[in-house]
Amino acid sequence: MAGSIFGTIFQISTWGESHGKGVGVTVDGCPAGLPLSESDIQQWLDRRKPGQSKFTTQRKEADQAEILSGVFEGKTTGTPIAIMVRNTDQRSRDYSEIASYYRPGHADYTFDRKYGFRDYRGGGRSSGRETIGRVAGGAVAMQLLKAVGIDLFAYTKEIGGIQADPEKFSREAIMENAVYMPDMDEAKKAEEFLEQCMKEQDSAGGIIECVIRNVPAGLGDPVFEKLDAKLAAAVFSIGAVKGFEVGDGFAAARARGSENNDSFCINNIKKTNHAGGILGGISDGSDIVFRAAIKPTPSISAVQETVNRDGEEISISIKGRHDPVIVPRAVVVVEAMAALTMADALLMGMGSRVDMVKEVYSR
Amino acid sequence: MAGSIFGTIFQISTWGESHGKGVGVTVDGCPAGLPLSESDIQQWLDRRKPGQSKFTTQRKEADQAEILSGVFEGKTTGTPIAIMVRNTDQRSRDYSEIASYYRPGHADYTFDRKYGFRDYRGGGRSSGRETIGRVAGGAVAMQLLKAVGIDLFAYTKEIGGIQADPEKFSREAIMENAVYMPDMDEAKKAEEFLEQCMKEQDSAGGIIECVIRNVPAGLGDPVFEKLDAKLAAAVFSIGAVKGFEVGDGFAAARARGSENNDSFCINNIKKTNHAGGILGGISDGSDIVFRAAIKPTPSISAVQETVNRDGEEISISIKGRHDPVIVPRAVVVVEAMAALTMADALLMGMGSRVDMVKEVYSR
Amino acid sequence: MAGSIFGTIFQISTWGESHGKGVGVTVDGCPAGLPLSESDIQQWLDRRKPGQSKFTTQRKEADQAEILSGVFEGKTTGTPIAIMVRNTDQRSRDYSEIASYYRPGHADYTFDRKYGFRDYRGGGRSSGRETIGRVAGGAVAMQLLKAVGIDLFAYTKEIGGIQADPEKFSREAIMENAVYMPDMDEAKKAEEFLEQCMKEQDSAGGIIECVIRNVPAGLGDPVFEKLDAKLAAAVFSIGAVKGFEVGDGFAAARARGSENNDSFCINNIKKTNHAGGILGGISDGSDIVFRAAIKPTPSISAVQETVNRDGEEISISIKGRHDPVIVPRAVVVVEAMAALTMADALLMGMGSRVDMVKEVYSR
Amino acid sequence: MAGSIFGTIFQISTWGESHGKGVGVTVDGCPAGLPLSESDIQQWLDRRKPGQSKFTTQRKEADQAEILSGVFEGKTTGTPIAIMVRNTDQRSRDYSEIASYYRPGHADYTFDRKYGFRDYRGGGRSSGRETIGRVAGGAVAMQLLKAVGIDLFAYTKEIGGIQADPEKFSREAIMENAVYMPDMDEAKKAEEFLEQCMKEQDSAGGIIECVIRNVPAGLGDPVFEKLDAKLAAAVFSIGAVKGFEVGDGFAAARARGSENNDSFCINNIKKTNHAGGILGGISDGSDIVFRAAIKPTPSISAVQETVNRDGEEISISIKGRHDPVIVPRAVVVVEAMAALTMADALLMGMGSRVDMVKEVYSR
Repeated sequence: MAGSIFGTIFQISTWGESHGKGVGVTVDGCPAGLPLSESDIQQWLDRRKPGQSKFTTQRKEADQAEILSGVFEGKTTGTPIAIMVRNTDQRSRDYSEIASYYRPGHADYTFDRKYGFRDYRGGGRSSGRETIGRVAGGAVAMQLLKAVGIDLFAYTKEIGGIQADPEKFSREAIMENAVYMPDMDEAKKAEEFLEQCMKEQDSAGGIIECVIRNVPAGLGDPVFEKLDAKLAAAVFSIGAVKGFEVGDGFAAARARGSENNDSFCINNIKKTNHAGGILGGISDGSDIVFRAAIKPTPSISAVQETVNRDGEEISISIKGRHDPVIVPRAVVVVEAMAALTMADALLMGMGSRVDMVKEVYSR
Repeated sequence: MAGSIFGTIFQISTWGESHGKGVGVTVDGCPAGLPLSESDIQQWLDRRKPGQSKFTTQRKEADQAEILSGVFEGKTTGTPIAIMVRNTDQRSRDYSEIASYYRPGHADYTFDRKYGFRDYRGGGRSSGRETIGRVAGGAVAMQLLKAVGIDLFAYTKEIGGIQADPEKFSREAIMENAVYMPDMDEAKKAEEFLEQCMKEQDSAGGIIECVIRNVPAGLGDPVFEKLDAKLAAAVFSIGAVKGFEVGDGFAAARARGSENNDSFCINNIKKTNHAGGILGGISDGSDIVFRAAIKPTPSISAVQETVNRDGEEISISIKGRHDPVIVPRAVVVVEAMAALTMADALLMGMGSRVDMVKEVYSR
Repeated sequence: MAGSIFGTIFQISTWGESHGKGVGVTVDGCPAGLPLSESDIQQWLDRRKPGQSKFTTQRKEADQAEILSGVFEGKTTGTPIAIMVRNTDQRSRDYSEIASYYRPGHADYTFDRKYGFRDYRGGGRSSGRETIGRVAGGAVAMQLLKAVGIDLFAYTKEIGGIQADPEKFSREAIMENAVYMPDMDEAKKAEEFLEQCMKEQDSAGGIIECVIRNVPAGLGDPVFEKLDAKLAAAVFSIGAVKGFEVGDGFAAARARGSENNDSFCINNIKKTNHAGGILGGISDGSDIVFRAAIKPTPSISAVQETVNRDGEEISISIKGRHDPVIVPRAVVVVEAMAALTMADALLMGMGSRVDMVKEVYSR
Repeated sequence: MAGSIFGTIFQISTWGESHGKGVGVTVDGCPAGLPLSESDIQQWLDRRKPGQSKFTTQRKEADQAEILSGVFEGKTTGTPIAIMVRNTDQRSRDYSEIASYYRPGHADYTFDRKYGFRDYRGGGRSSGRETIGRVAGGAVAMQLLKAVGIDLFAYTKEIGGIQADPEKFSREAIMENAVYMPDMDEAKKAEEFLEQCMKEQDSAGGIIECVIRNVPAGLGDPVFEKLDAKLAAAVFSIGAVKGFEVGDGFAAARARGSENNDSFCINNIKKTNHAGGILGGISDGSDIVFRAAIKPTPSISAVQETVNRDGEEISISIKGRHDPVIVPRAVVVVEAMAALTMADALLMGMGSRVDMVKEVYSR
């Protein structure tokens, strides 16, 4: 419980720093018999890989996944699946400057306070490269969700205030623009906005939306282990997330009960889905819909004020390879965290009724 | 991990239903030697007790806390602190109607899907009475926070779109109006709005803000156990919460990096606090600030459409004792969940450096 | 994780001290739909209740179980089952003496070192009364085991070196003698031995054996969560346990591989069961058999040397109500801990194969 | 909680199979600032490496540890420490025979029943190679224990009934004989006995004893998280362990209270240590002493009866590289599991008193 382990039955344990030997994940508790290959994982890693567009860092990393254990004859064995990605582009450069001060918006200062010192090379453990472990683990979770028919995907809902229009939603569009928006027109505007940000040596934030379809009703537990509470923790554990909402979210706080309640109708389908697919912390069978607010990249080349380790005030300008926006690359990370949460909820929920327990053990 | 246990070292385990014999909590892992009496707990329970204003259910409950174990000679002993509140006003009424259908916005349907049946009396375990256990446990956590100098409080930021004005913030005002707003003028408007809601047989939602002061830097863990992720899960586990944000939250998604970054200055105080006191998941020593969006009470007396257990569409009008808004009563529940999270983070964070470990064991 | 919570899905949280208001347990994670009444619990509590024979303390306690939550219309609801037993015979006596020194073989000294002080009345949390919570929780677990056809029982194998003869094993005999031995002849000898101990103001220990039948093959997990490791922890958590062994146990350390290996035969039944029903930490479908070594009761009236809180050496003679042997009363506690472990293993093991997951969620 | 994660704050997550790409461990929760190098780990791995004596498998493995993360400038950073050992001697051989039947005393059958199939090459995850992860993780834990002055070591107490004589105990001797006994004379007899076993195509078991010195009083928690219960689980999770006892263990079951109680004396040192350093589940400051019973190696070349996957009875003779006794190589594994347990107990115990919490946070 020191930070790098996630989940209760379907558990991942991640490791690795930006400029260490590599990054990786061990998945424990994945059911046996699930088809899994390195390419199943690679396709997810490729979506977060740097260098995919002009809006991502130009650091060159192959981010090639190697499965080290837990798969035999193309299927998971039920034992830990270790996956490793070697770091290749650890530029040998002089870190003495970055080591000496605290970058605004980064974890430099808090790591020093917590641990007494830090691996300052490229942000160390607090670097975005840490998410490789999540995404590789999430790729395994996705295979499990697929096996039970659950469809999970995310996309950029908004960048710098420019919102994808729900009326023009196209799932295919998501993969066809550099910002992963489901609306080509707004995506184009967002790209123009980002180019402007880059010119101004500034950065932008945005909102990611995630949709989970074909979820069995009954997942999640009452009180502290509500499915939305677990999704909240999962998504809020991603570095730059500052807000999380389910269904109508903050807008629900301004609605009346008569507007916000979703009527049930025949076949237990709800007429509306203001709740976002979860009632009382338990999935109701409708689409689960949530959004995450992502702050603007804190690394900007514009001049900023800060202090150094000696407590002196200084002016800095952060050089190096940084994304003007991390929203597009974070889309697959949100998917990964949601998939991990859902996979665990599936396994945790199997024994909620005594008849289910009897059935499984009478086979 | 079936829902009713929260925390890792400072752990609570809650129990009880709306119309069962009572509700309660067991606190395990509280350090020994902390002063604790029943009145320390009662003062927090009294703030969530029904019948405090016209905006809360008129159910009559004494909500009297009884400490059953774990306190000796006025101090915690380090062993489990069991606290019980007997239910007294379980009106004997006919529940056959409510048992037969699914109330929109409630957990009736999802409990039936998960468990096969439900204790339908007053919502059973999904009733707001469940929060008594949290608040009693939170009261113990508050004693621990107080012992290390942490100051934690929450208030109503907004009801039905009416916002407390930050310029007119008064901490004293919070306890002086029925809606727990830190601004008497807006509180009055909110009360008028709620009266209108009641006349229209409707309900309202709102936003609660929580501030935590004097937090030592270094609490929380990187990656999955970020302090904000834990607060998110804690607060999202409260029944009606639909959104959660830290610092600037969703507004950060629309800001530029140059605006959103907080510059460090002398004594490591930040010039601004857009981050809300947490960087990289670890407390930075500034005030922690977060907000929770609360949906409108789903129980309204206006006519609604739904289905019954036989799958037939019906019209219903919910009678009984319900709050037109749960925001004011939820304030203390938000405080409790935040206090529990902080208490656990304090205990989890003691061994982050080897010199701290050596120091404690060389005494 | 401060001591009083046990299990991962099927979890219990216990509380209470010897001379506080009562003792109790909350069971979380019990599947819904299991028949449960207070008498289902009471029959187990009655077996550990004081005053059942001349070999147990003459303290008078009704030990009456009250179910406070989690049961509706005679069945578990899936939500926490709180069970409480009020202490009734808390004699008002002078504890100043016992408060001042450390009883040999007891936890007085270690509690003081850990917590700085202790509830010294009757041993406080380290009293045997603490096991009431375990037994009540175990009674609920037993209901689940019964539902899937598992048969679990324990008995006294040995007291003061007097062993029940396996050749004369009679399950009926167990409940027909004061020491719960499955062999009436040796039981008689054990009783005579205990009477002699009492005359000599001394106490005795013994060995409890537990057998679990009709266990599905496949329970338990490799590496750290082996079923025998979990049983070991569960049983070793009982106050006076000093040893634990599975199958041939310590005798296996002296056997040859050719003797100790169990050959598989048709229908995957093993010809022998030296392994005690567990291979590689996973149940193999044979009977699970384990033994626990119980130390002699540390409270004896014979004179003993010790130190007081001021560090002075003194001589003491412990008065009061104490069992000359705790083995018979511990039998039901061993059963309870084994049942809790097996119930949790059943729920944890449901998702070990992807086809099981698909099956449960395609219903 | 699917088996390969151990600990609460000081946590390890292990992975790897006998004939996969490698084996490894990730240590999370290790305090920052602890000196750690690959050679600190290698020295422990070398003690369990095959080929060290004629009594161990002749498989050739360098078992070279590579630290992949979590160490910076020679010290732990507080973030996950990933350690990997590549498998090098995975002989390409025909596994079709071993895949077809169930070896007596092994986990082949139970893995098939749990997971539906298994990685049968060299035992897969149930191979002794799995312990490399434990030992590497244990090496890190040992560094932490050393930092607070705790001294932990184990040795072979008995092989095939031949016992090291406590009167002739020599700590230096342990590393000077092939069976790691603290008594050169009995070690010689044990070696002769093992040679006889090998000639007879048979195998032997034995008993390992572990001693932990300079343990602070107050570690471990009451009720379910007793220090001895945690050590029991830790040690019982090692593949071939069939029994575990603390202090006098099973012999205590045959002693009288007057014999078994340890009198406290001046300076709170006990006159005797029948209890093995733990009272009421909490360390008392004396040496912690426990023993583990190890069964004879199940892989023997003598002919055995078993069944194949088709349920037919067959005779087999297991060829290949196997240890006639695993006790000597298991010594370091017992040390590793004990060290991991103690490291976690140290970190978990820091907040047992409110004054300790205040002290740490007032720095």
